[in-house]
Amino acid sequence: MKKSERRGVNRIGRGNAALRDDDVVVEAPLELRVGGRSVLVTMRTPGNDLELIRGFLWAEQAITVDELSLVRVAEQLSAAEQGNVVDFTIDPERFAERWTQRALFASSACGVCGATAIDSVATRLSPLRGGDAVSATVIGGLVDSLRAAQPVFDVTGAIHAAGLFDSGGGLLCVREDVGRHNAVDKVIGWAAGSGLLPAAELVLVVSGRISFEIAYKAAAAGIPIVVSVSAPTTLAIDVAERCRVCLCGFTREGKFNIYSHPFRVS
Amino acid sequence: MKKSERRGVNRIGRGNAALRDDDVVVEAPLELRVGGRSVLVTMRTPGNDLELIRGFLWAEQAITVDELSLVRVAEQLSAAEQGNVVDFTIDPERFAERWTQRALFASSACGVCGATAIDSVATRLSPLRGGDAVSATVIGGLVDSLRAAQPVFDVTGAIHAAGLFDSGGGLLCVREDVGRHNAVDKVIGWAAGSGLLPAAELVLVVSGRISFEIAYKAAAAGIPIVVSVSAPTTLAIDVAERCRVCLCGFTREGKFNIYSHPFRVS
Repeated sequence: MKKSERRGVNRIGRGNAALRDDDVVVEAPLELRVGGRSVLVTMRTPGNDLELIRGFLWAEQAITVDELSLVRVAEQLSAAEQGNVVDFTIDPERFAERWTQRALFASSACGVCGATAIDSVATRLSPLRGGDAVSATVIGGLVDSLRAAQPVFDVTGAIHAAGLFDSGGGLLCVREDVGRHNAVDKVIGWAAGSGLLPAAELVLVVSGRISFEIAYKAAAAGIPIVVSVSAPTTLAIDVAERCRVCLCGFTREGKFNIYSHPFRVS
Repeated sequence: MKKSERRGVNRIGRGNAALRDDDVVVEAPLELRVGGRSVLVTMRTPGNDLELIRGFLWAEQAITVDELSLVRVAEQLSAAEQGNVVDFTIDPERFAERWTQRALFASSACGVCGATAIDSVATRLSPLRGGDAVSATVIGGLVDSLRAAQPVFDVTGAIHAAGLFDSGGGLLCVREDVGRHNAVDKVIGWAAGSGLLPAAELVLVVSGRISFEIAYKAAAAGIPIVVSVSAPTTLAIDVAERCRVCLCGFTREGKFNIYSHPFRVS
């Protein structure tokens, strides 16, 4: 399925207008079904949909390694649904149990105090172990490396990306999506399918801000370092501190800020 | 409640590191309760929480003008919950009926085909009427006007904003939030509380991309023009076409692209 489409636009300059075509990012709904019933619908850029669902379920702690292959493209769909439905072919009752107990849900159900939410998440996630540090020179170059690997951004100028890099700065996987969190789910779903989780040796690079959700997803995947061109939020820093994730922000021209666990950078 | 906090960071340059303080955007959970029961939790930047919930419920078509005052700061909370819970003091059964029938939910429940979702939304929303056109010169300056009215961005460099402007380019309301959609909900909630909805004479300006959700919220509020520094998605253009909303994107240095209903710009 296409990730961008040509659309007609009026280009308005100072005092003149011109009709032309523009490449626009595709956004379309993706539905997850378990036992034939709709569990959720997310808006995403089509492509790598199985990775998206696997990565999402991984962060929700609602799937195990052995069950990754049970996430499949749905069959026998109407023409309109084709390509936009994924089945998780697990026993629905077992899934329902996990779904009502999932970490992010539990964190809200047990009170909206940030500290309580973080305690809940941190308790469910094992704090990451030490691992080797990554050099500041490598970290400083990762945002540009991600940007250089974004074909859809090249034509549309408006799509998020997430990438997984090894500790030497080598790119392993990049995914583009209209949603920041979707792009992260897709690379984590790729890593899950490649047997790389928990990804104690990898670095996650994101094109947008590091919200609580992004920091949490990294921790859930065992990723010790997250790098962004933009900044983290307070809650992202708090969950990263608790889970021992190093957050690097404002990564521009080789310089950056470390907001948590600086010992992971040498 | 504070919108940004000082946090210690390690600033890494080329070959050196320095400890300093940085202003970081606050992200914290906000809970909506009806009849004492939690309906949803959203991560947001604190402040204007009643506007946020009113605007959100407006787009979901789950609140009427007469009920806006029933959205209140919750009382008798624990210390941890203080300031992070809003009550909608409506009859819970009446609310439950609307909640299960709300537009965005219905659009997913009735099939994930984009066209179906848009038909569902467009049928529920009255197409906007003509209204006066806004001059291209005014449109071209609105992104800079929004940027000039963002005090939290000035100190953090990383927060979204939404603004409502009149047809002459005058700023009526600006709100900053870590979430793009939250910032839009807040200005729409402000407009609802000010008796300005449907806002047939106003222009919505956003700091990020125009996703389906943003275009939909504008249509639900009766706003005929949306302006962004970035681009819309395909689904945003489709819903805007159906609801007769004019989307202006890539608004930079006075120039911009019109993606739908160009007759609203003169």
